[in-house]
Amino acid sequence: MASWSAAERLDQQLRFIVELDRLKQVLRMMPLISDQRRENSAEHSWHLAVMALILAEYAPSEADLPRAVQMVLIHDLVEIDAGDTFCYDAQGNLDKAAREQRAAERLFGLLPPEQGAALRGLWEEFEAGATPTARFAVALDRLQPLLLNIHNRGGSWRAHRITRAQVLQRMQPIQHGLPALWPRVLELIAQACARGDVLDQPDSTG
Amino acid sequence: MASWSAAERLDQQLRFIVELDRLKQVLRMMPLISDQRRENSAEHSWHLAVMALILAEYAPSEADLPRAVQMVLIHDLVEIDAGDTFCYDAQGNLDKAAREQRAAERLFGLLPPEQGAALRGLWEEFEAGATPTARFAVALDRLQPLLLNIHNRGGSWRAHRITRAQVLQRMQPIQHGLPALWPRVLELIAQACARGDVLDQPDSTG
Repeated sequence: MASWSAAERLDQQLRFIVELDRLKQVLRMMPLISDQRRENSAEHSWHLAVMALILAEYAPSEADLPRAVQMVLIHDLVEIDAGDTFCYDAQGNLDKAAREQRAAERLFGLLPPEQGAALRGLWEEFEAGATPTARFAVALDRLQPLLLNIHNRGGSWRAHRITRAQVLQRMQPIQHGLPALWPRVLELIAQACARGDVLDQPDSTG
Repeated sequence: MASWSAAERLDQQLRFIVELDRLKQVLRMMPLISDQRRENSAEHSWHLAVMALILAEYAPSEADLPRAVQMVLIHDLVEIDAGDTFCYDAQGNLDKAAREQRAAERLFGLLPPEQGAALRGLWEEFEAGATPTARFAVALDRLQPLLLNIHNRGGSWRAHRITRAQVLQRMQPIQHGLPALWPRVLELIAQACARGDVLDQPDSTG
């Protein structure tokens, strides 16, 4: 790093910080609870980070809380270039990984190299979902939209005619990342089906 | 806490998490950089939290990074009830503290008692701005709107005819919470004055 002066280093960091502003314009499929506008990925990431603080006691015992908070804060940064891909959009998900890798290259590349590499490592750990910290972070990312939809007349489920089987599959990571919450999640999904917010039709594959 | 069952405890936590959604509707005076809509306090808090990660190396040496991240994540929660008060609005700032204390009472009171008390302590530490961790957090809260205004043709400064003396006073905490950035902040303010984004008129008091 000897070739980077302190001023250049700060320039890179400030440019990255200014670039972050664009995540506030990436819209998710999810409507807010008390407003019908769509949620953006920056405020969604904030919601997950506060949830991590509140629900820390239910995390897997080996999870690292500060690292989980950092992970959810940056987990959607690649959407600045790659956009949000609706989780139930099979077509859009086909090239999602390639789009997001290109985005990671550019965005984390704005930072001083060792700092960009650390953030990219955090994002890759989230994407892989294999460590206790990542399992906790991924579970939060599934629980938050469920809570919004439950309190919002079905929100994105109802708008896109999502089935019980699809929701159950999407929520699976909660079993591993927030196991104590799984019975509650099953109750909430049952209520959503009973209200018609989620379609309770047999899965087309069986 | 023996009288609280595990299910009641989780109920309280989930109700608090759902309540958080309302911070996404609290609008600040600040326009986004690449959009003219106003920034909301949830996405602002997210921006500060990522800035804390990126600028950690410039924090006072005794600052606790994970605690600073938690602090900026929750520093504006009281605005769910109290609304955002524009920092240059002398009238609105007269009763700000009383409105925010009532909000803190209600909002942190939604949580299990020891958890609510911990979050309230974090918020009060931020408000007092006296610890190294709080000085770092407050400095981030001043730097972020400066960066947005600088990249947005003066943003809220230009819209409200803010003077150089007002901006300099508002940015003072950066001297103590991010001292290495102070020379850069002075340069940026000088540029904003030169462009007419900030009024370079003599302070009316002298």
